[in-house]
Amino acid sequence: MNFKIRAATQDDCKDISRMITHLAVFEKMPDQVKISHKELERDGFCPNPFFKCLVAEVSEEHKTKEGHTVVGYALFFYTYSTWKGPSVFMEDLYVMPEFRGKGIGKGLMSKVAQVGKEKQCVRLQLSVLDWNTPSLDFYVAKGAQDLTASEGWHLLRFDGEALDKLANEAPED
Amino acid sequence: MNFKIRAATQDDCKDISRMITHLAVFEKMPDQVKISHKELERDGFCPNPFFKCLVAEVSEEHKTKEGHTVVGYALFFYTYSTWKGPSVFMEDLYVMPEFRGKGIGKGLMSKVAQVGKEKQCVRLQLSVLDWNTPSLDFYVAKGAQDLTASEGWHLLRFDGEALDKLANEAPED
Repeated sequence: MNFKIRAATQDDCKDISRMITHLAVFEKMPDQVKISHKELERDGFCPNPFFKCLVAEVSEEHKTKEGHTVVGYALFFYTYSTWKGPSVFMEDLYVMPEFRGKGIGKGLMSKVAQVGKEKQCVRLQLSVLDWNTPSLDFYVAKGAQDLTASEGWHLLRFDGEALDKLANEAPED
Repeated sequence: MNFKIRAATQDDCKDISRMITHLAVFEKMPDQVKISHKELERDGFCPNPFFKCLVAEVSEEHKTKEGHTVVGYALFFYTYSTWKGPSVFMEDLYVMPEFRGKGIGKGLMSKVAQVGKEKQCVRLQLSVLDWNTPSLDFYVAKGAQDLTASEGWHLLRFDGEALDKLANEAPED
């Protein structure tokens, strides 16, 4: 099956939003999705966008029974290592189940790596849930190192009231 | 001791680079630092900078014996959650040992939270090494959740040859 990988446009946001929800269901946190295609349109397609996105598209003859031809996406942004310099972080990589095993996920990830390298990025990073062994195995097979396992990095988060409290306690200028 | 927190300028990059090295020594990976103040000047002070940085400055009377008045920094950038929207990631938070316990680290982090909230960020995230219990305790006491411990998120990385291979295998446009 042929597929094409291309930069997402604003018109793809409904498709991306649909797949974000599918991914959250798989990750067992469907109630965590608070944004819709409207926020994606606003945040990804403004003068200084918060993210970049690639989509995988199949031809009309392979469209899903619901009529979708956009069947996967990779959403990423640039970060920075104070040791190594520019890096790219792949926030989401998703391919609809019926289109897996055809190289689409690998294609999307490789394209993120290529786009990142064009921006002089020396790292591609991502987060995976430890019980998601198919994904962990996929990434490790492609050469990823698990830094939480090897070096002990933990991800911490402030949100909600903890973030509000922190922000309210900032020293005055 | 009074201190002032302000946005870093290009002229601060030598100070920031000095402290990046100190932090890497503390994290037991000093040989990992491959960038200098020149890369910081280029990457943080261009039209679309890869990062933002705040510095903490003390008055001349409290300068270090080497003559430094910039004694701490917080380096951060904007990221994106496909569930919640704009987020801020604090890559580094550092205060020189002789200036700790004075609220400088808390002040820097609070200011990052405030700046992030002004950009509509709903999360402040960071990574910590699991053996770095003083830092872990500091963040948790301020309200951070350890998502690696509670949800099982692992950080994965492609770099070097693995990244090159991935990028070289990207499908053609």
